[in-house]
Amino acid sequence: MTTEEAGRAFGDMPADEFRKHGHAMVEWIARFMEHSERLPVLARVAPGDILHALPESAPEAAEAFEAIIADFDRILMPGMTHWNHPGFMAYFSITASAPGVLADFVASALNQQAMLWRTSPSATELEAVVMGWLRRLIGLPDAFEGVIYDTASISSLHAIAAAREAAVPQVRTRGLAGRADVPRLRVYCSDQAHSSIEKGVILAGLGQEGLRKIPSDAEYRMRTDALRAAIAEDRASGMRPIAVVATVGTTSTTSVDPVAAIADLCEAEGLWLHVDSAYAGVAAMLPEHAHILAGADRADSLVVNPHKWLFTPFDLSAFFCRRMDVVRQAFSLVPDYLTTPDAARNLMDTGIQLGRRFRSLKLWMILRYFGAEGVRARLRYHIDLAQRFAGWVDADPDFERLAPAPFSVVCFRARPAGRERTEEELARLNEAILKRVNDSGEIFISHTVLRGRFTLRVAIGNLQTTDRHVRRAWELVREALEAESA
Amino acid sequence: MTTEEAGRAFGDMPADEFRKHGHAMVEWIARFMEHSERLPVLARVAPGDILHALPESAPEAAEAFEAIIADFDRILMPGMTHWNHPGFMAYFSITASAPGVLADFVASALNQQAMLWRTSPSATELEAVVMGWLRRLIGLPDAFEGVIYDTASISSLHAIAAAREAAVPQVRTRGLAGRADVPRLRVYCSDQAHSSIEKGVILAGLGQEGLRKIPSDAEYRMRTDALRAAIAEDRASGMRPIAVVATVGTTSTTSVDPVAAIADLCEAEGLWLHVDSAYAGVAAMLPEHAHILAGADRADSLVVNPHKWLFTPFDLSAFFCRRMDVVRQAFSLVPDYLTTPDAARNLMDTGIQLGRRFRSLKLWMILRYFGAEGVRARLRYHIDLAQRFAGWVDADPDFERLAPAPFSVVCFRARPAGRERTEEELARLNEAILKRVNDSGEIFISHTVLRGRFTLRVAIGNLQTTDRHVRRAWELVREALEAESA
Repeated sequence: MTTEEAGRAFGDMPADEFRKHGHAMVEWIARFMEHSERLPVLARVAPGDILHALPESAPEAAEAFEAIIADFDRILMPGMTHWNHPGFMAYFSITASAPGVLADFVASALNQQAMLWRTSPSATELEAVVMGWLRRLIGLPDAFEGVIYDTASISSLHAIAAAREAAVPQVRTRGLAGRADVPRLRVYCSDQAHSSIEKGVILAGLGQEGLRKIPSDAEYRMRTDALRAAIAEDRASGMRPIAVVATVGTTSTTSVDPVAAIADLCEAEGLWLHVDSAYAGVAAMLPEHAHILAGADRADSLVVNPHKWLFTPFDLSAFFCRRMDVVRQAFSLVPDYLTTPDAARNLMDTGIQLGRRFRSLKLWMILRYFGAEGVRARLRYHIDLAQRFAGWVDADPDFERLAPAPFSVVCFRARPAGRERTEEELARLNEAILKRVNDSGEIFISHTVLRGRFTLRVAIGNLQTTDRHVRRAWELVREALEAESA
Repeated sequence: MTTEEAGRAFGDMPADEFRKHGHAMVEWIARFMEHSERLPVLARVAPGDILHALPESAPEAAEAFEAIIADFDRILMPGMTHWNHPGFMAYFSITASAPGVLADFVASALNQQAMLWRTSPSATELEAVVMGWLRRLIGLPDAFEGVIYDTASISSLHAIAAAREAAVPQVRTRGLAGRADVPRLRVYCSDQAHSSIEKGVILAGLGQEGLRKIPSDAEYRMRTDALRAAIAEDRASGMRPIAVVATVGTTSTTSVDPVAAIADLCEAEGLWLHVDSAYAGVAAMLPEHAHILAGADRADSLVVNPHKWLFTPFDLSAFFCRRMDVVRQAFSLVPDYLTTPDAARNLMDTGIQLGRRFRSLKLWMILRYFGAEGVRARLRYHIDLAQRFAGWVDADPDFERLAPAPFSVVCFRARPAGRERTEEELARLNEAILKRVNDSGEIFISHTVLRGRFTLRVAIGNLQTTDRHVRRAWELVREALEAESA
């Protein structure tokens, strides 16, 4: 074999073959975008169906790409739950928008790694640019430096680690274990905060007891009086409070903690304030909702996830920090093989992960393609759709709303008029409604539990969702109640 | 505006427009694949060039996608360091192979989230399938369960957290701080281990002092005798050893720690054994290199990164664990809104991150497209190319090799015959050579420091790299030495 032959034999798919399959895939995705509604939104397979349809071992011989795509269509497509479907109204509804998908395509091909500035000046600096754009759009001051991580779990983990770094002398070198000079540490969040906060606290070595969940008020907002009392009680018992996590847009009800009041308290107590606005933070782009981040300018850190409600294909979590030097102090480690002569900051110093995908590209293309006013119009439309749904619930004597709906999520349940039912009966009824709606294949909604009450949850946020889909969701809920009442 | 008009006005890019831009992007990527060599491999911009070429704020009005792509070409392309270029021989050389790029494209569009089985049965079960394929290919027994994370940093972090969970009673609930019953903890790795181990140990609350770096031998392998002595010494001083990280393919020299001997010691001492084979683990697919994982069947966990030497677009790190129940015990937290009626395991229970991109798809397509024998042929070819380079170094009296080259990385330096030079002079000379080679734009190599000696490092691993590029790299190194000697 000549060296040229060897190069071909041991190389990648030839460019012309890539062209052929690439064009076919563009058509595949375009058809999917046009017709996603025809697919059931919630997958209709049983556990094990996909697993057992595939061989236990990789093939020895190379296979044609067409054969792989045929199996993808035949075996994998039925097992997809379609997050990019207008009827997806579960959890938080998200969008892989077309400009974001195209950006991700070229990002995959370029395979940029922005660990060091020199290993991708464009990915390093574009990250600073788009984080600046996003920061201004949501109204945070210049003092916040931005960095992109994969998920809000990782963003909030960095906030917790930074709070620990700021509060515990020499924690980077000496850690927490076996130290008589370090008391038990506490982080505070509301009883509505996301599970990622608790996971982060566990990982940071504080233990679940290191997280104190503050009761929320009737509208599921953290009670500042209870927070103040908890901090005082903990200090009195010898514990060291280190941070408070305020949530703007909680996962169950999208409630908004009183950030300004919490910021006052954090300033007085010397605690790190992290704002988890992973879902709702983008709503601060709307003048009529800007108040949700009032006080966040005094936070130490804040997370907002463009892959939630900013039309960005998963994953892209935006972390803003007023004290990024503390994050770097906690994490920067430069081995010999990663030293460089460049007078530039390296993104690897700002986190636990060394390798980093070129995520800023998709957010850059999305913000330019839709424009700030286009983004605002879409957010307003989603909020409007949710408010219409909330209105139908409120107007129906057989249903009740279980929480305010400040954004694009509505919490409610069926509670048929005319007969008293126990909480248990109501839970069974609403679980049955949930199952019927989701079995339709047209709409997928999820649930939560609020003060012990089984709650249905409709979340709007996909760019393909329109009034028609929201009406259909309500129709299906109503029909399910009728079927259960029959 | 009718509701239909609103749906259009507030929707995504229309499918036909996606078609147009998608096809154009396929052509763009195909041309890039054909002509990546014409681009300088290392970006030639100065810090700030990209940043200052872009506006400070997002545009208010929507922009045409063509205008965005024009700026991408004009402003961002010059700031790319081309990891997917045949002349990229720095750090570890990686590939975004065409089948992987196509898989990632459709994964972006589908936006699957495998946090729960029901939110993507296909992504959940395909992950089990491809992790089974990879496990068999590298020869790990059935007892290892696999899960995909983003980076080796995160995979190893989970290993450290699991080791802590296994060793410290009630660490999940009570943490490490303020506990008189928990002594100082220790993790061990060699002085050649990756910086991510130290970062993980810091994050887990053990502190840098919680990591003891064991000296390596003349071939940069962990000294088992020194490890044994360190553990005994630490126990005697009241510390609690919890884990050893053995590296198979260290970052500087790709040396291989004696895993079997370390496994013996870990068994005797009751320590968690984590094998970091992020780069070299895939070489165990070759019968002639299978020995590198001898003893790894007795490890508790192991990481191997398909995004390093398995042609997978970043990011995809494969974590295998014999005690995944401990990982779940450390991390599983199921809030009300994520309970499901399904009799299936949910991937969110196996890690710190709740959201997870559909990463298994690219590895599945890559393994099928190239086939196991195609993968092996390519790995062998890369090893062969590196051995040729090592041979040229060895045969040249003006150069010396500074470490064995068991895989596809060669560590060497210029040390011109005929005149003694100080270490400092040699470092300056080789730094100058490094700069000249990288300024060529044809080849990008990196460096490390070995026992105080500034070392040049050539890493082979991109699917487009052939004999011609490796010869050119050697030519450039030689020419640089001549220019420096002139």
